[in-house]
Amino acid sequence: MENQCSFLFFFTIFASCIFNVCLSTEIHLLRPKHGTAGAVPVHGISCDSWRLGVETNNIRYWKTIPVECEKYVGHYMLGHLYRKDSNIVVYEAIQYAQSIDLRGSDGKDIWVFDVDETSMSNLPYFAKHGFGAEIFNPALFYEWVDSAKGPALPATLMLYRKVISLGFKVVFLTGRTEAHRKGTETNLKRAGYPTWERLILRGASDSKLTAIAYKSNKRKKLEEKYGYRIHGNIGDEWSDIIGTNIGNRTFKLPDPMYYVG
Amino acid sequence: MENQCSFLFFFTIFASCIFNVCLSTEIHLLRPKHGTAGAVPVHGISCDSWRLGVETNNIRYWKTIPVECEKYVGHYMLGHLYRKDSNIVVYEAIQYAQSIDLRGSDGKDIWVFDVDETSMSNLPYFAKHGFGAEIFNPALFYEWVDSAKGPALPATLMLYRKVISLGFKVVFLTGRTEAHRKGTETNLKRAGYPTWERLILRGASDSKLTAIAYKSNKRKKLEEKYGYRIHGNIGDEWSDIIGTNIGNRTFKLPDPMYYVG
Repeated sequence: MENQCSFLFFFTIFASCIFNVCLSTEIHLLRPKHGTAGAVPVHGISCDSWRLGVETNNIRYWKTIPVECEKYVGHYMLGHLYRKDSNIVVYEAIQYAQSIDLRGSDGKDIWVFDVDETSMSNLPYFAKHGFGAEIFNPALFYEWVDSAKGPALPATLMLYRKVISLGFKVVFLTGRTEAHRKGTETNLKRAGYPTWERLILRGASDSKLTAIAYKSNKRKKLEEKYGYRIHGNIGDEWSDIIGTNIGNRTFKLPDPMYYVG
Repeated sequence: MENQCSFLFFFTIFASCIFNVCLSTEIHLLRPKHGTAGAVPVHGISCDSWRLGVETNNIRYWKTIPVECEKYVGHYMLGHLYRKDSNIVVYEAIQYAQSIDLRGSDGKDIWVFDVDETSMSNLPYFAKHGFGAEIFNPALFYEWVDSAKGPALPATLMLYRKVISLGFKVVFLTGRTEAHRKGTETNLKRAGYPTWERLILRGASDSKLTAIAYKSNKRKKLEEKYGYRIHGNIGDEWSDIIGTNIGNRTFKLPDPMYYVG
């Protein structure tokens, strides 16, 4: 009886551990929660708040994510929340796209898509480089770009297909340089984006411009020189969607890994 | 022995409940978590993602919070995270304010503060009205405004004191109407804002303007007619910080309770 009792006791502890303590510890490791050790304080402020500050453009000009938030950002990017946060943006974008009447369009109604962390994900690269905790290394990054192995962001791919089916033309506008046009084209096609109106990369004359100035110039040219109408504009950086000629409606996808000013 | 054993068994279950299941249920009630029932799906999307969508200006023109998110928004507004999210915005604002050299200022260097959910909190009011789940009722809201009982937002009060100590002048620019000037003045002083350069409310001629147009007009007048320089501009609504003459740097405080377009 004593043995049975001990067994029952330890089994109950064990079961309790499996279904409560151990499970919640495991969930915690996978998914940081508000107010727990997952949201490590940064100067007394949580990584949750840091991420919101970044996404709302309150925190600017940062070079790397706070070292204390490396695990947090990794868990976010690899977990469900990043996908859900992206899905809701695209849900709104599709609602907006569907509200536009394109009957009789002259083919000048466009939707502008950024590339990195918007159309294509560099998660396989950043997962090996601290999710933004390491200083950005252009040489290594472009090696990855030229491999053309980036997967599509599922939400953006859905938006791309939707706007094309509605009659919009697609323009990709990226901060990647012309030297990487081939890798970018190959990757876009491989990832599920078979067609586009234009793919604009940074040329030699753009090399000294900020991202905001470079992208504003290109959008201005699209509208004023070529007569396009930018209805929607989606990117993961604020520099994709501020400046001039930003489009009738802009959409900001989440990206807590890096900042482009 | 059998009784002891049963006792041990049930005690262990009970203790397990107290320290795991029951506790986590209670924490859950106080603080919704990612991926739990706290973050109730809205059309398959969590309240966490809905809040991020609102804060990043992806979700616009909404009249009430999703009914499924009433508890979530209430817990957020009453909990630590809302304060932390506000603190990090003000931390960035103070860093920026301190970077400006105001030696020899002619008294025209200003910081623009919105009032509701920026300088003063209406949480005591909204807590009685579903945290944004009820359609906004101007008559009831202005009754509350005239009571002049709103507490200061602690983070914004800190920023207000800091910018004044640095030599900025403060301008309050609010969507409240002139009819409520007295209640607003009384409340500002009572809440800890004893002085200001100007307190601008909506006059009769502003009544048909959108918030963006009204606030842009007033800021334009401040700069172009009166010669002020807007260095900082802080608000809880995107309509506080977009449009024209927005200031050298804008700051967006969190507010998932209502939308002003």
